[in-house]
Amino acid sequence: MAAPAGSRTRTASRDDPKRSEKWKARRDTIVDTSATVFARQGYHATGIAELCEVNGFGKGAFYYYIGSKEELLAAIHDRVMDEVMLGADRVAEAGGSPSEQLTMLGAELLDVIHRYPDHVWVFLHEFPALTEERADQFRERRRDYERRVEDVLRAGIESGEFREVDPWLTARAWLGMHNYTYLWLHADGPVSARDVAKPFADIFVRGIGT
Amino acid sequence: MAAPAGSRTRTASRDDPKRSEKWKARRDTIVDTSATVFARQGYHATGIAELCEVNGFGKGAFYYYIGSKEELLAAIHDRVMDEVMLGADRVAEAGGSPSEQLTMLGAELLDVIHRYPDHVWVFLHEFPALTEERADQFRERRRDYERRVEDVLRAGIESGEFREVDPWLTARAWLGMHNYTYLWLHADGPVSARDVAKPFADIFVRGIGT
Repeated sequence: MAAPAGSRTRTASRDDPKRSEKWKARRDTIVDTSATVFARQGYHATGIAELCEVNGFGKGAFYYYIGSKEELLAAIHDRVMDEVMLGADRVAEAGGSPSEQLTMLGAELLDVIHRYPDHVWVFLHEFPALTEERADQFRERRRDYERRVEDVLRAGIESGEFREVDPWLTARAWLGMHNYTYLWLHADGPVSARDVAKPFADIFVRGIGT
Repeated sequence: MAAPAGSRTRTASRDDPKRSEKWKARRDTIVDTSATVFARQGYHATGIAELCEVNGFGKGAFYYYIGSKEELLAAIHDRVMDEVMLGADRVAEAGGSPSEQLTMLGAELLDVIHRYPDHVWVFLHEFPALTEERADQFRERRRDYERRVEDVLRAGIESGEFREVDPWLTARAWLGMHNYTYLWLHADGPVSARDVAKPFADIFVRGIGT
C-alpha cells in the first residue's frame, strides 16, 4: 500500500528497496511481538536475548532484521506514527468543515489507539529512551501531527466556526482527551473506538464552537 | 495539617504516631528525591544502591525510612493521590454549581500536576509495577477520585446544567484532557496551571452544557 503524499514514512531500513517483501513482513512481525513484550515489562528491563527467545531466533537474525534494541523502539514508534499520519492524510483528502475535520481526526486517532494498544503504550511510556537523531525524528513526526490538529483549529477560528481559542493549548486539550484513552480503550474492552469518537467530538466541537 | 474528612491517607507508616516529625520529614525528602530519579531513568532501571547514594545514606537507613523499593513507589503514588484528594475535598467544601465544581476540580488537579511533575510522571508511567495489596489500594484511590468527577457530572445532568452525557466516558475525557498536561506543564515551562485551567474549563463546560 503506497503512502499518500504528505505522510512521512521514516522506517528507512524497512522501506529499503533492496529488502524483500518477506524480509519486511518478518520485520513487522518482530516489531509487533516486541511491542507486546516492552508493554508488559518495560523497554529497559527487556534484553536482546529475551527478544530473540520470544521471536524464536538467534542474535544473528535479530541484527539481520533489526539493527539494535533502540532501532526496534524507533520502529514501534514509527509503526504508530505511520498509522496516525495515514489517518490524518485521509482526513485532509476527505475535506469538509473544520468541525468535520476535527471529528474525523479524532475517529482516526482513536482507531489507531484501539488497534495498537501495546505499541501505543510503548510509544507513550518509552519515548524518552530514544536518543540523538532518533529522538529528533520522533519529536518532529509528533510535531507534524500536532500541527495538523492546530491547523484545523486555526481554519475553524478563521471561518468563524470556532471561538478565538489558543490553537496550541486547545490542540493539547484535544490530544490529551484522545491519547489518554490508551489506558482503557482495548480490543477486548467494554467500549469500541466508534463508541468513544462521537461523544468526544460532541464535547470538543461544542466546547470550542461559536 | 490534618486531612479533612473524606480524604484517605494511605501512607500508613508515614502516619504512624510512634514516628517523629523529623522521621516523617526525612522520609518525605527521600520520596521526593527518589521520584526525580525514577522519572529520569525509570523505576526498574534504578537500584536501591543508587537510591542510597542519591539520598546520601546507607542501606540500613533506607530500610529504616522506606521498607522496600516498591514501598517507595507506593509512597510516590500516595503523595500524588493525597494532594489530588485534598484538592477534591476543598472543592466539595467550597460548594457551588456543578460547572463551578468541575472548574475548581480542574484547577486543583492541574495545580498538583504542575507542582509535582516528577511524581506525576512516575505515577502515570510506573503504576503497573505495584503488586497485590499496593496495586489494589492504588486502583481504589484512583477510582475514588474518578467517582468524584463522575458525581459532579451526574449532579449537573440531574440539575439540567449538563446534557445527558455518559458520566463514565465523559469523566475519562475530562481526566485525559487534564492528566495529559504532565507532558508539558512544568514549573519552568511557558504556561502555568492557572493559564491552562480556565481555557480547559471553558471547553469542557460548554462542551457538555445544555
